Amino acid sequence: MGGDVDPISAVEFLPDPPRVRILDQTALPGEERYLELDSLDGVAEAIRTLRVRGAPAIGIAAAYGLAMQFNAPPGTKEPSQGPEVLAAFEVVAGVLAATRPTAVNLPWALDRLRRRLERWVEDPGDGRDPGTVLLDEARAIHHEDREACGAIGRCWDQIFPVPAGSGPVGVLTHCNAGALATGGMGTALAPVYAAHAQGVNLRVHVGETRPLQQGGRLTAWELTRVGIPVAVTVDSAVGALMARGRVNLVIVGADRVAANGDVANKIGTYSLAVLAREHGLPFYVALPSSTFDPATRTGLEIPVEERSETELRGTPGQRAVPESAGVWNPAFDITPAHLVTAFLTPSGVVRPPFGPSIQAITRSFAGPASGSERHE
Amino acid sequence: MGGDVDPISAVEFLPDPPRVRILDQTALPGEERYLELDSLDGVAEAIRTLRVRGAPAIGIAAAYGLAMQFNAPPGTKEPSQGPEVLAAFEVVAGVLAATRPTAVNLPWALDRLRRRLERWVEDPGDGRDPGTVLLDEARAIHHEDREACGAIGRCWDQIFPVPAGSGPVGVLTHCNAGALATGGMGTALAPVYAAHAQGVNLRVHVGETRPLQQGGRLTAWELTRVGIPVAVTVDSAVGALMARGRVNLVIVGADRVAANGDVANKIGTYSLAVLAREHGLPFYVALPSSTFDPATRTGLEIPVEERSETELRGTPGQRAVPESAGVWNPAFDITPAHLVTAFLTPSGVVRPPFGPSIQAITRSFAGPASGSERHE
Repeated sequence: MGGDVDPISAVEFLPDPPRVRILDQTALPGEERYLELDSLDGVAEAIRTLRVRGAPAIGIAAAYGLAMQFNAPPGTKEPSQGPEVLAAFEVVAGVLAATRPTAVNLPWALDRLRRRLERWVEDPGDGRDPGTVLLDEARAIHHEDREACGAIGRCWDQIFPVPAGSGPVGVLTHCNAGALATGGMGTALAPVYAAHAQGVNLRVHVGETRPLQQGGRLTAWELTRVGIPVAVTVDSAVGALMARGRVNLVIVGADRVAANGDVANKIGTYSLAVLAREHGLPFYVALPSSTFDPATRTGLEIPVEERSETELRGTPGQRAVPESAGVWNPAFDITPAHLVTAFLTPSGVVRPPFGPSIQAITRSFAGPASGSERHE
Repeated sequence: MGGDVDPISAVEFLPDPPRVRILDQTALPGEERYLELDSLDGVAEAIRTLRVRGAPAIGIAAAYGLAMQFNAPPGTKEPSQGPEVLAAFEVVAGVLAATRPTAVNLPWALDRLRRRLERWVEDPGDGRDPGTVLLDEARAIHHEDREACGAIGRCWDQIFPVPAGSGPVGVLTHCNAGALATGGMGTALAPVYAAHAQGVNLRVHVGETRPLQQGGRLTAWELTRVGIPVAVTVDSAVGALMARGRVNLVIVGADRVAANGDVANKIGTYSLAVLAREHGLPFYVALPSSTFDPATRTGLEIPVEERSETELRGTPGQRAVPESAGVWNPAFDITPAHLVTAFLTPSGVVRPPFGPSIQAITRSFAGPASGSERHE
């Protein structure tokens, strides 16, 4: 299941010379442009400017960017011995960690590489160099995310309503939590791809997702690419969509989920959750295990990135906001756990009470592919 | 009260030769460009393309456009005798009525001019020609709307909370229901102007109001022009604004209010109402009497304009939605009466139950300035 879809690949690692290939999402849907980034600054810039975005994809891109630095050609690459390698790691990781603050997958991926490197310093084992060790770990992160997406997709038959009559099942999503946002077929869109592969007649609704329009540009692009019908509206029309009975369920992704189940996700998610509750519609949040953050107790502790005013002000030729007015441009909002019907995870559908289930998932979640040392 | 503000004038009638002067709102906030329209097609185009917009302003512009046609230079102007003048009226009114379907003020204004002309045909009275009679009636519509705005503004001290501490009162509005949308100081913004004139420390929040950005472009422009602080967000951030405690009350305008109190207003209004209820915030709808439509029983009967997909699709150079995806672009949504805390009207603050109060307002509302023949 889910194997029938061929989702686009948002981020890849290419060897000889080592570089990170990303699909430049700022050029979509007009142009399918790939960038091959061979410098740390290039990778950091791509994350900061949302050329690559989506919490899981950011983690993978950062992991590959870091591994790339330790696989650079001889003479330019980072040191490969003892404590120096750990110090060098921190410099590189610091650049990547500073790009975006909200998605927990970014520091999670860097932390996983750090712990792998620490183990290597203690015991180099079979003599592989740090570059190889780090690249293997980054590839493992990517592989596991792809598998996690597939597992999330398999939740579809527990959440999709049996279609009444011949009409399509109306799925409302927000922003882009699809293949473009992950290492696989997406989080929120994984059940959509899986249901489509099983022949379910569905129709996806998505708001533009201002200001950067990831819904209208990216979700619409990647779904229609495989023949799934998509209708785009302005973000503020989601209430009217629900009032007209066009939505059967809501599925969104997440950038970070606190230990109590509060969800940080793209600005506007909270409004969708309140409206879904008003209309008696289920509101699902789909995520890999790495997006649960046991260290954050509630949504109040999640840092919310505020982005530049320029994203709203228009161009000098076509001002969208006068200079005299202020702009508030938060990238995310917090949806309280009580508005979430269930989490769609690689471990299956998680229903309330969330606290114990989230604790179980994060405890059993063996970060490094090579073992369960995460919570040693 | 309210006399201290000098709001911008969205629409005026200029004689010799007769023409309708409008502030082209599609050029704001970048440019304050006035258009002098001397043809029926010009006025109709200006309404259709939202160069002049806002339910009351549309009614005034249509009334002036119609009167202009009957005041054109000799040889080109409409007939001035008997039944021919009524037939000519219908042709002109038909062009204007077809421009936009949702705002009730447009057919209301045309109907008022029609009834005035019918009385003139029955009894020409002092011998004034139809052009003069129609222009006087159009001016009366404009004058009464200006007065209505002032009266709505006087509701402010019944709805503004006493500021707690030294922080500003946070007012959330949507789209533009200000001076630019009316013949006076606005509907939703009238209490804002009035409170500001009384020295109330306030801060107005407004969403961009996609797709045509009347909030970010117009409300921000007209309020900051007189020194009222405005913060613009993406439309989907209003929930986060409320969750952060930045909003004390919500005030919006209306394009049509049904006999039961259901409200048609700019797309997104319904979401604001649901979110206001979730946060325990008052949700006010401000409108002149002409926006109540006693002939429409509930919101289900209100026609909702669906505008062109092109408003969302971006430009060929910068696609915002791929060709492969559909677009749904409703201009309005319906907010059920039970979510409305009160209507702010020229007759004062109207609280539930709304039905009898709305009936009383529309019964006592003497449409034509010259008398109470409306419901003869």
